[in-house]
Amino acid sequence: MQLSKPRVVIVGGGFGGLQAAKSLADTDIDVILIDRANHHVFQPLLYQVAMSALSPGDIGQPLRSELRNYKNIQVILNNVVKIDKSKRLIYFEDEDELEFDYLILSPGARHSYFGHNDWERFAPGLKTLNDALIMREKILTTFEKAERNYYSPDSEKYRTFVVIGGGPTGVELAGSIAEISKKTMLPDFPLLKANDIRVVLIEAGNKLLPSFPDKLSTYTKSALEEMGVEVLLNKRVTNINADGVELGSDFIKSTCVIWGAGNEASPLLKSLDISLDNAGRALVNNDLTIPNYPNIFIIGDSAFLKDANGVNVPGVAQGAIQGAIYVAEIIKNRKKNSSNLPFRYKDKGNMATIGRAKAVTQIGNWLSTGFVAWSLWAVLHIVFLINFRNRFKVIFEWLWYYFTFQPGARLIYYKEKKNKE
Amino acid sequence: MQLSKPRVVIVGGGFGGLQAAKSLADTDIDVILIDRANHHVFQPLLYQVAMSALSPGDIGQPLRSELRNYKNIQVILNNVVKIDKSKRLIYFEDEDELEFDYLILSPGARHSYFGHNDWERFAPGLKTLNDALIMREKILTTFEKAERNYYSPDSEKYRTFVVIGGGPTGVELAGSIAEISKKTMLPDFPLLKANDIRVVLIEAGNKLLPSFPDKLSTYTKSALEEMGVEVLLNKRVTNINADGVELGSDFIKSTCVIWGAGNEASPLLKSLDISLDNAGRALVNNDLTIPNYPNIFIIGDSAFLKDANGVNVPGVAQGAIQGAIYVAEIIKNRKKNSSNLPFRYKDKGNMATIGRAKAVTQIGNWLSTGFVAWSLWAVLHIVFLINFRNRFKVIFEWLWYYFTFQPGARLIYYKEKKNKE
Repeated sequence: MQLSKPRVVIVGGGFGGLQAAKSLADTDIDVILIDRANHHVFQPLLYQVAMSALSPGDIGQPLRSELRNYKNIQVILNNVVKIDKSKRLIYFEDEDELEFDYLILSPGARHSYFGHNDWERFAPGLKTLNDALIMREKILTTFEKAERNYYSPDSEKYRTFVVIGGGPTGVELAGSIAEISKKTMLPDFPLLKANDIRVVLIEAGNKLLPSFPDKLSTYTKSALEEMGVEVLLNKRVTNINADGVELGSDFIKSTCVIWGAGNEASPLLKSLDISLDNAGRALVNNDLTIPNYPNIFIIGDSAFLKDANGVNVPGVAQGAIQGAIYVAEIIKNRKKNSSNLPFRYKDKGNMATIGRAKAVTQIGNWLSTGFVAWSLWAVLHIVFLINFRNRFKVIFEWLWYYFTFQPGARLIYYKEKKNKE
Repeated sequence: MQLSKPRVVIVGGGFGGLQAAKSLADTDIDVILIDRANHHVFQPLLYQVAMSALSPGDIGQPLRSELRNYKNIQVILNNVVKIDKSKRLIYFEDEDELEFDYLILSPGARHSYFGHNDWERFAPGLKTLNDALIMREKILTTFEKAERNYYSPDSEKYRTFVVIGGGPTGVELAGSIAEISKKTMLPDFPLLKANDIRVVLIEAGNKLLPSFPDKLSTYTKSALEEMGVEVLLNKRVTNINADGVELGSDFIKSTCVIWGAGNEASPLLKSLDISLDNAGRALVNNDLTIPNYPNIFIIGDSAFLKDANGVNVPGVAQGAIQGAIYVAEIIKNRKKNSSNLPFRYKDKGNMATIGRAKAVTQIGNWLSTGFVAWSLWAVLHIVFLINFRNRFKVIFEWLWYYFTFQPGARLIYYKEKKNKE
């Protein structure tokens, strides 16, 4: 008797989607992984691409190559725009469609401007390699403008960098900008002096790294301040325009504002017609399915779940990876929804880096800071990088930077205007 | 007695412009180097960025960093749009202007479509890092389309790559595409087989590498054919559209056409109001000045000169570098035009690479092919790469590719459409 092969469609090739595919590899299940880009990105190091420290190829790996050895997995480069849960169909941008037996959604999140989408063009965020390259050019161009407008009356705005959001991304960005400003860029810009560059980090809450223990937040603040970053807590951004950032009655003049604040889950989830939270995340069942559809799962930072231990599953790599492994097990066992053991997130710790030889880590109750934390951060990030090739290159880049303060990819492309046609 | 310091303005940071600046370093002359991008590109390896083999940072170096140690040199990131030779002024895009005592123009060339600029969007060319990234995405996307449309009636056009122009660039591109198609990409695309991929190289003349001795042209043709490239000689392109390339009454269906043919000097030269040749190059005096202006020099591939030996100075790196050294000497000696010894180009040889362990080189009368030529090519390109950092990285990438056939940067970015505003 011939059993029909079930088809699992996975949307999104981030940490969750890629892990789901790997966990279903070499089974008698047909797996189709779909992404809009052709590569997986090691997101924790994305800020280093934005900071010219790494090249996109150092942290990106083609999904096809990563999965080429598994005969039951197919990769498709396309953009999913709609899901029909009862017909079991997904629809692509180009109007193609694809049927599924099981659907694993891990479409990720974009940065969110809390209803002020017009701020995006003044304050770009950081989620994809393309975002990182846009941010890199903005930062490098700002130094060029600072030098060119050094004697102009509004020179201050060209020498001020503002980072909005005191989470790990904001801390990493503010720390790196302060570091490369003083160590890397100054020798290249004869007019600029160390005191000319101002880096401001703005956080709406009352501490940096809100998800970390207070002790680490306090360390982070003083480490950043030592590096010359002005940290503003309890300040809410009320407007952003081409000249700077408004904080209620204050205004910080800056032509280089960077967004490291809120997230918003993929708009694709809206087509599921289920309950979403304020950040657009799907409210999933405790087995990561959506209500009434035991064959549709959502993992990663586009789902919201208080798990069986009462913990909010965080929108980080570990949350997505653990969700993916859990969901793959359910599908491999083809159990019905009712009998699934609920998902439990296992917190493996938390870390954020601030600058050279400065980081904070929390592993269970063990907190560390400074060089120890930074070494741990560096080793773990190297270990989890996707393959030997990239590991080797990133280690080289880091060693090079550690000793020379010269990051490797400070390039502003000239884009020919296409006005010939 | 105080002598006024003369100001030399250099337009363009390619091989010629960068060399001119370095040759004028540490003198009592004020030097200002202007480029539209912030980096020098090692152009001979640009095709490797287009082929995903290298990252932009591997062959690009910020001009400011390259020149930071010279106190008399200033770097400006801007686009020069007009020159007023009698007022001794150059005008920027943003309407700023700058005065000069001496002007060294090395604005380079763009690829030319011989009056068919509408072909550009179907057949991109390769002059800048931005061009290389556009070409890379086009090639990678073609493989995705070939797989997706494998069973469609017009599947052939998605599996056919056409390279136009049989000079060094066209040869390098056609050879690389054939090589990565068969060695790198096939394992990632389960439907595609080696015979499905067609690579066609079209040359209007009667041999490949027109500037090389016949023996090397013949070797190149058979080496490419061995690698599976169809070489068409004496074929003139009459039209290019979204479906392919028209050659008189023939039509080759292809969605991936690449332009490696003609060059056209920078349109900036038109504002000089001097004689230009068909390729838009300035017809310079035998000391590289322009008629009646002994203080304005043009070097590199935007100038045309039959030198004092009766040799047409070729538009290659050596031509630009030798021109730059010659011009810098004249300026340092501040001689009058009349007393300048005419410029003589010293031919140091010619080389082109075809694929892994396949190249051709000509050094004086010594011709070599195959592995010997390729090793020579590789060593020389590494030696001339701009600094140790890049050399190290490129060697790593080449060794990695040599042994694994897996180039490092096969990334297609997803660009979020900005339709929110």
